[in-house]
Amino acid sequence: MSDTEIQDPIAELITNYNELNSSQIDQLPSEPSPLEFMRYVSKNTPFVVRGAALTWKATQTWTVPYLKSLLGETTQVNVAVTPSGNADSPYSLEQNGTTSLVFVKPHEEYQPFGEFLDFLTSSNSPTKEVRYAQTQNDNLRNEYLPLFSHVERTIPFARIALDCDPDAINMWIGTSHSTTALHKDNYENIYVQISGQKHFVLLPPICQPCVNEQMLEPAHYVRLPCEGAIPVPDSTDLGLVMEPHSPYVPFATWDPDSPMLNETEYSCLARPMKVTLNPGDMLYLPAMWYHKVSQSCKEGEVCVAVNYWYDMEFTGPLYPLTTFVRSVFNKEREIESDIEDEDGNDE
Amino acid sequence: MSDTEIQDPIAELITNYNELNSSQIDQLPSEPSPLEFMRYVSKNTPFVVRGAALTWKATQTWTVPYLKSLLGETTQVNVAVTPSGNADSPYSLEQNGTTSLVFVKPHEEYQPFGEFLDFLTSSNSPTKEVRYAQTQNDNLRNEYLPLFSHVERTIPFARIALDCDPDAINMWIGTSHSTTALHKDNYENIYVQISGQKHFVLLPPICQPCVNEQMLEPAHYVRLPCEGAIPVPDSTDLGLVMEPHSPYVPFATWDPDSPMLNETEYSCLARPMKVTLNPGDMLYLPAMWYHKVSQSCKEGEVCVAVNYWYDMEFTGPLYPLTTFVRSVFNKEREIESDIEDEDGNDE
Ligand SMILES: O=C(O)CCC(=O)C(=O)O
Ligand SMILES: O=C(O)CCC(=O)C(=O)O
Repeated sequence: MSDTEIQDPIAELITNYNELNSSQIDQLPSEPSPLEFMRYVSKNTPFVVRGAALTWKATQTWTVPYLKSLLGETTQVNVAVTPSGNADSPYSLEQNGTTSLVFVKPHEEYQPFGEFLDFLTSSNSPTKEVRYAQTQNDNLRNEYLPLFSHVERTIPFARIALDCDPDAINMWIGTSHSTTALHKDNYENIYVQISGQKHFVLLPPICQPCVNEQMLEPAHYVRLPCEGAIPVPDSTDLGLVMEPHSPYVPFATWDPDSPMLNETEYSCLARPMKVTLNPGDMLYLPAMWYHKVSQSCKEGEVCVAVNYWYDMEFTGPLYPLTTFVRSVFNKEREIESDIEDEDGNDE
Repeated sequence: MSDTEIQDPIAELITNYNELNSSQIDQLPSEPSPLEFMRYVSKNTPFVVRGAALTWKATQTWTVPYLKSLLGETTQVNVAVTPSGNADSPYSLEQNGTTSLVFVKPHEEYQPFGEFLDFLTSSNSPTKEVRYAQTQNDNLRNEYLPLFSHVERTIPFARIALDCDPDAINMWIGTSHSTTALHKDNYENIYVQISGQKHFVLLPPICQPCVNEQMLEPAHYVRLPCEGAIPVPDSTDLGLVMEPHSPYVPFATWDPDSPMLNETEYSCLARPMKVTLNPGDMLYLPAMWYHKVSQSCKEGEVCVAVNYWYDMEFTGPLYPLTTFVRSVFNKEREIESDIEDEDGNDE
């Protein structure tokens, strides 16, 4: 090696980013103009507007009895069922004495809306499972259509700035038992809290080298009894089914709330941005930001949120540069594992 | 090495960028609104508005005699003097049988404005040197102040979008003999052609690995005779003085118009964007884009342009990611040169 010190470009990237950007979220006094919003889109930086949706009919009226009366006790809704609130997340599977990390999806089933809400709000449910209405398929303009007129049809500043209507408007109904694992979406996201609280932990796209993305074998929960299902220690009602014919899923395995587990050499450089949303608060979550979301609400109540996904811009340098960070990190990883392999061979 | 093929992240970055972005410049039918402009800033993508400044008094009145009458024949202006129109550019210096690339700056001197214009417009000048008024120090609001009221004081859409006034407004007066070498600036640039033509060759910031940036020893031209000056083959009037106590200058050494000289392994992937500005045309040149600029005008006339530099945004991911591309490229280079050194030692 030469005298010149070969620096670590990835560590430098994260450090430079941290020096130029705050890890405290910007709080705007009111909804931004389209131009002010576009400045945030341009710098791919989140903000929150406290109380922006306090005047929405949804925020003012969506109690559990009212939701039931409007949507109907018996309307069937799609519900994600898991033993411990871990839908779409990495899961340590112990089998035949070995542990492997798999990507576990919820058991999905249709339930009468009334029964679903009763389950969420009763403290002594018959089963110990966790339920969460969390389909991200524009459900507010489909399954939950009778409720749609209680929220904005689009977020005006975002529609004007981005010059498009939302691709999807999603309803989220759950309790403090559900957590959404750290992941990212290729959408500009306006997230509005209606009832209860949501706790976001956010990381910018340049933190890809911190989140320890792995290719995970997919699996999903099923209701027992089910032939071939793998029992899971946390449940007598649910088991796991592997999906040997589905492609592996690239997924973050580091959790900023348990920073010493599954970390990479770069995880310690991450400066997570934390924000809690109260009813009426509106969050701008820029495209490609990693987010982990947990929630809390009072006994007998539910956490309800509505979010608007707008198409992100793929032209310009940001999207290819984000891919570049991943490729540089993966290449470094491959080289390191090759060196380890070679060292192994020597022994 | 393992079976997994280790791809080249830099080649992938440039290829991905090329697939998502056109190398033809967008032509807008009229000046954008602040919001439309911000969308271009956000995607760091150039555009041109043909004829946007045709109504400016400058475009309509700035002939050579009129300029003289307004600024005064005898007003002193700063002029860059070079043997062949190569101010602020890499230069191959042959000395003691070896060739080295240095960074050469012009000889700067003050000349009466009338004399400067007479020199530019006369076909048989007494000396063969090239002159160019090109100080980038807000000269239009200083040296050329009497002319300032003939152009817009700020570009309204840019002022509103970027929420600031221009940091500098620069006047450029030259002829087809001057070329500005490929370089980049940390400014959002609105460039307006007043008379003659400018020919831009543009490369996005992600093309850093294509431009073969080198650390060059600085030098500047001086009028001869001058003790210690190095003669240059292209001139009997000018010589070169090295600056041994000044820091080396990082500078692009690849010229997209001579693609086989000084190229890197990535230069062939660059897709230069070319645009010629005619009088009245307005170019948005986004921050950090590489640009090479040549010019042409009729015999007896001059090329005049005015540009507005607005501060760029350093928050967000783009600036640190641009540094990251440079660091990854430099590290790859260092590793390659280390391997070559080691191979050399083995022989
Ligand atoms: O609210 C949640 O549980 C997750 C929200 C989310 O992932 C999103 O809005 O993209
Ligand atoms: O007009 C020229 O010669 C160069 C212009 C330039 O480099 C700039 O506007 O930054």
